[in-house]
Amino acid sequence: MDPASQPQRRNNLDNLRVVLVATRNPLNIGAAARAMSNFGAAQLRAVNPYEVAFREARSAVGAAELLAGAKEYATLAEAVADCRLVVGTTAGRRRELQHELRRLEAGGRAIIRQLKTGPVALLFGSEKVGLSNEDMSHCDWLMRIPTREEHGSMNLGQAVAVCLYELVRETAKAEEKRPRPAVEEPKAQAGEIERLTQLLCQVLGASGYIKPRVARATEEKLRRMLHRLDLSASDAELWLGMLRQIQWKLKDR
Amino acid sequence: MDPASQPQRRNNLDNLRVVLVATRNPLNIGAAARAMSNFGAAQLRAVNPYEVAFREARSAVGAAELLAGAKEYATLAEAVADCRLVVGTTAGRRRELQHELRRLEAGGRAIIRQLKTGPVALLFGSEKVGLSNEDMSHCDWLMRIPTREEHGSMNLGQAVAVCLYELVRETAKAEEKRPRPAVEEPKAQAGEIERLTQLLCQVLGASGYIKPRVARATEEKLRRMLHRLDLSASDAELWLGMLRQIQWKLKDR
Repeated sequence: MDPASQPQRRNNLDNLRVVLVATRNPLNIGAAARAMSNFGAAQLRAVNPYEVAFREARSAVGAAELLAGAKEYATLAEAVADCRLVVGTTAGRRRELQHELRRLEAGGRAIIRQLKTGPVALLFGSEKVGLSNEDMSHCDWLMRIPTREEHGSMNLGQAVAVCLYELVRETAKAEEKRPRPAVEEPKAQAGEIERLTQLLCQVLGASGYIKPRVARATEEKLRRMLHRLDLSASDAELWLGMLRQIQWKLKDR
Repeated sequence: MDPASQPQRRNNLDNLRVVLVATRNPLNIGAAARAMSNFGAAQLRAVNPYEVAFREARSAVGAAELLAGAKEYATLAEAVADCRLVVGTTAGRRRELQHELRRLEAGGRAIIRQLKTGPVALLFGSEKVGLSNEDMSHCDWLMRIPTREEHGSMNLGQAVAVCLYELVRETAKAEEKRPRPAVEEPKAQAGEIERLTQLLCQVLGASGYIKPRVARATEEKLRRMLHRLDLSASDAELWLGMLRQIQWKLKDR
């Protein structure tokens, strides 16, 4: 039997959430939906899509059902709240990045591992400017498709297609070799990291650590740092408990 | 240096000819051109494009030069005449195929080998019907992208992007090592982790979080947790600063 016609050993993308942030062009939403249907990812989330782009999404050949089930969110924090890994995509060359940046091949492997244990968000920014620094502060790390330096920026639908292809691409070899940790600690959800970010900001605000003039930049810095820590769910819970007690004590004056 | 920022060990696509057969939609020609520019394939050939599609090709962000250099042919035979390998792409399920069919991962490896010695044509059929049996008869073999059985047919520009990505995708073992942060952050010294542990215990003691009876066990638990975080020196410094401010505020009563 020809390998091409064998029933496919496919990675399961049930746990993947494709998150489009501030997408402006309905054609691109439709194209992303079609690529998702081609590769077996069903959950599309749109954050603050431009005007009527979300409603007018067309050209989604074969993906009407997927589009009908897509969800709309007012903020990125809400869109990724239930995810245990949040990965932003970027052309990765236009500014100083404050995040770890992985090539798609390596990033894809990390995402595949995480998809086996819980929800993963894969973020795509707007056509014009990509993800903002604040968007990126919600990410655990960033990933880039290995495009040419001279022309790095891809069409949105094509970028989605290439990333999803990498996730269903054959990986049997790599997976056989990889040793697994004896007990896999579940990672904290992005929603918990966000609650931790907000609580830490409140405590630091009450302590006079955060200067109002740079409060927003400090918040982004702290969010990045907390994502960088790669907290387990139980460690996040521990930090929340400690900070709540400190907050209570600071108020109790 | 991070693999993501290294000058890329890229397969050379100079010998690749992307051949669009009977494409009907100018947007798709533009999208194919953009993907080619992203991944470094320069030679686009169009066979019998539908009416004025070839002239009206748009949305080719950054690929205008590539499109201007594209060549038009009346027949497929002429378009592939100089190529030593001709590969057709297909969703591969709608009819009896009389050709060898390879999945993209395996077909890509064969194409990469051939590109080192001479021109290779990669054919994409029309949006509606793909390649005809006659078109396929010009092919050495066929290749399919591993899409879902239930929705195999991809958008043309996305199919081009995915195929070209496979051709520039890393294959060298050396690059498959675990990725590193973009800038190698020195890790915190154990002494810093210990200072952090002590300071955290003091703050939590002042807040009433730590019960005196189990203070020692709590201290050990916190020390283990702080080591688990694998903090960089700068993140440890950041935490020390935040906790010192909180401690100062708690005392300032």
